[in-house]
Amino acid sequence: MGNNVSIGLLGLGVVGSGVIKLVEEHQEKLIHQLGCDVQVKSVLVRDLEKTRGVAIDQSFLTTNPDDVLNDPEIDIVVEVMGGIDLAREYILKAFAAKKHVVTANKDLVALYGPELQEVASRNKCDFYYEASVAGGIPILRGIVDGLASDRIQQVMGIVNGTTNYILTKMNTEGLSYDTALKQAQELGFAEADPTADVEGLDAARKMAILGRLSFSTDVDLEDVEVSGITNIEIEDLEYGKQLGYTMKLIGFANFDNQQLEINVQPTLLSNNHPLSDVKNEYNAVYVYGKAVGETMFYGPGAGSLPTATAIMSDVIAAIKNMRLGVSGNQFVEYHFKKVLKTPEQRFGQYYVRLHAKDEVGVFSSISTLFNDLNISFKRILQNPNKKAETAEIVVVTHQTSLENFQKALENLNELQAVLEVNSYYKVEGDVAK
Amino acid sequence: MGNNVSIGLLGLGVVGSGVIKLVEEHQEKLIHQLGCDVQVKSVLVRDLEKTRGVAIDQSFLTTNPDDVLNDPEIDIVVEVMGGIDLAREYILKAFAAKKHVVTANKDLVALYGPELQEVASRNKCDFYYEASVAGGIPILRGIVDGLASDRIQQVMGIVNGTTNYILTKMNTEGLSYDTALKQAQELGFAEADPTADVEGLDAARKMAILGRLSFSTDVDLEDVEVSGITNIEIEDLEYGKQLGYTMKLIGFANFDNQQLEINVQPTLLSNNHPLSDVKNEYNAVYVYGKAVGETMFYGPGAGSLPTATAIMSDVIAAIKNMRLGVSGNQFVEYHFKKVLKTPEQRFGQYYVRLHAKDEVGVFSSISTLFNDLNISFKRILQNPNKKAETAEIVVVTHQTSLENFQKALENLNELQAVLEVNSYYKVEGDVAK
Repeated sequence: MGNNVSIGLLGLGVVGSGVIKLVEEHQEKLIHQLGCDVQVKSVLVRDLEKTRGVAIDQSFLTTNPDDVLNDPEIDIVVEVMGGIDLAREYILKAFAAKKHVVTANKDLVALYGPELQEVASRNKCDFYYEASVAGGIPILRGIVDGLASDRIQQVMGIVNGTTNYILTKMNTEGLSYDTALKQAQELGFAEADPTADVEGLDAARKMAILGRLSFSTDVDLEDVEVSGITNIEIEDLEYGKQLGYTMKLIGFANFDNQQLEINVQPTLLSNNHPLSDVKNEYNAVYVYGKAVGETMFYGPGAGSLPTATAIMSDVIAAIKNMRLGVSGNQFVEYHFKKVLKTPEQRFGQYYVRLHAKDEVGVFSSISTLFNDLNISFKRILQNPNKKAETAEIVVVTHQTSLENFQKALENLNELQAVLEVNSYYKVEGDVAK
Repeated sequence: MGNNVSIGLLGLGVVGSGVIKLVEEHQEKLIHQLGCDVQVKSVLVRDLEKTRGVAIDQSFLTTNPDDVLNDPEIDIVVEVMGGIDLAREYILKAFAAKKHVVTANKDLVALYGPELQEVASRNKCDFYYEASVAGGIPILRGIVDGLASDRIQQVMGIVNGTTNYILTKMNTEGLSYDTALKQAQELGFAEADPTADVEGLDAARKMAILGRLSFSTDVDLEDVEVSGITNIEIEDLEYGKQLGYTMKLIGFANFDNQQLEINVQPTLLSNNHPLSDVKNEYNAVYVYGKAVGETMFYGPGAGSLPTATAIMSDVIAAIKNMRLGVSGNQFVEYHFKKVLKTPEQRFGQYYVRLHAKDEVGVFSSISTLFNDLNISFKRILQNPNKKAETAEIVVVTHQTSLENFQKALENLNELQAVLEVNSYYKVEGDVAK
């Protein structure tokens, strides 16, 4: 390595353009921090003629991946092209050519992170992906370095900006899911095909990555149970408000005695919980460590420059390692084995909304049903609906095992007086008395 | 350096005990991360006989500082004794003996940080102080590493747990300052002599440290303008609530075109601002970067184990540097010169509460007074107080220079109709329409 570090970019969308902008604007600071020049040498694009949002000399652009992956002068490859198979192939080629790789590609890291990390280490290369989780928030570095001597026991995250935006609008303006989604699409906070966001898949990928680093155990993407926000009804947000809760799509991961619970689901979060105030497209990750207690990292989850900032923090870390001759020293082996918790081992509070016949003894039979499973109630609301001669009943349970709660749901559905179980959600945190 | 790294502790209070506890509990993880054993070898204490909150062999304790500072086997000195002059003397001795130093001592770092950093670098030693600001929150690392390629423009912090606890109680329970302070003292959130906390000095020290690292400029402790919370009246919290603001003791630092504004003052913060929800003894630091936009780091500002966690993250960083042979490479020179902004260059919104005669034309004369200085009103409240024939008037201004606002205050005091200007506070953020 000479006095220059050269970066090759795979892709030149909004994030790639942001990287180029930051490298240009921070030349002086980079030289001071690193003692060397940093420059973008070539950029793989699909179309040489396309108009770009960033000023870049045409001569840097190429449609041939080898111009990036096999140029011996390029030290660090920044993958911002997205997608999975081709991105993986290029990254493996980069490692084979002894290049360090920085990526923002959560889909890829969630699926192939451990494999890529392993190949990187074998080639003495760095593999960093801070930008893959919660864009501009330096959360992975916070967990790995900042809380290095702690044992992280629980991570809860609002890690998808699209769904948080939609839920915020539903909550504050009383919009239906469909209307809120449409608004989000018009404003560019949701894609034309929002499936990966609204079904919770995007959040699940980030939780898998967070879980691995937080607990030092091998979390597979398929370990993450997922349910999205598409069926959330405004009634449940309203009842939540009455009871002191805010509906959020929460990524939850808990590791306890090598037993793992990890999922993404709409959750009624106590208004006392720091995550309940995270609004609009913002992201936040709440970490509970044995020693440190609760900390939270908050910031933009996406966007060109926030994501580029995270990428550049990785590029700088990789350059520091190059200069120190310690590249590829990241941890590869997981400290702990994991087993997934069974429903018997998972505990939580739950919210249930149901419609029952509005007649004497109905509530008592529902109450007995929960009692028989040792589930006690924390809050109960009952609204008679005179026109239809039905009653809408909302209960919030105390802590119970998921197994018992699932049995309660089954039994409710069999109870003659119960017309319909409309919805149920996990509840997190306590509300003020 | 062999296969062991030995730590010497200066002081064995709650934080020192926490460090010993973490080192013991995390032996396996430390070996894995670092490839070496980490052990506490000696601990300087004042009294060998005192009962300790942590199990430690008496033979490790010493009352002779040389047993820590001149033991060639000790690689890293952790200073948790507090105080200034003696701590500085010991740390300088440690650097002279080529030992790395980790400290939680904000008073010392605020006053002598640049000097100590310089001596450390000259001796190729590391000097880390993550624990000196906001206890368990990895904020310094977040700024230095996570946002390395960004230009930080503004930092706002709730960096003193005692005052935040007191203000939270005043705000949520309507307690007076004196009652809230007394409660905080009983619960151990405030010291018997709370001066350094309630007068804002503790927060000022942390802001000086944050300002240096955020802006890469030489912030002196005396650059930080300070006012504390002792004169806050419950009326102002109540009016704040009516208007959509929460009173917080805010450390504010802004760096713009090499012009610095830095201060600690009670501030009425819009309820839309993420900092407004930080309650009780918790700390949070809100960072505004040119590229990343807004991020916030939240967590416990103090406490034995959170602070020890931050210390251990520094110890681990220092050990990594030792093993890589790159100790003492931290930045010493500041990138930017600074001049302090004059009142003419400082802008803000302001809240003023005053009592005036309840007669025709009074409000108009006050209004003219502000108009003449080009200050316009954002909100106005006026409550007649019939018994006393006076009116209480509260105004919130739009952005104005501090110079003009100070002139307005002077002119108000001279206005015959104004009986008393009761209070005025800076206002941050916008409230929903």
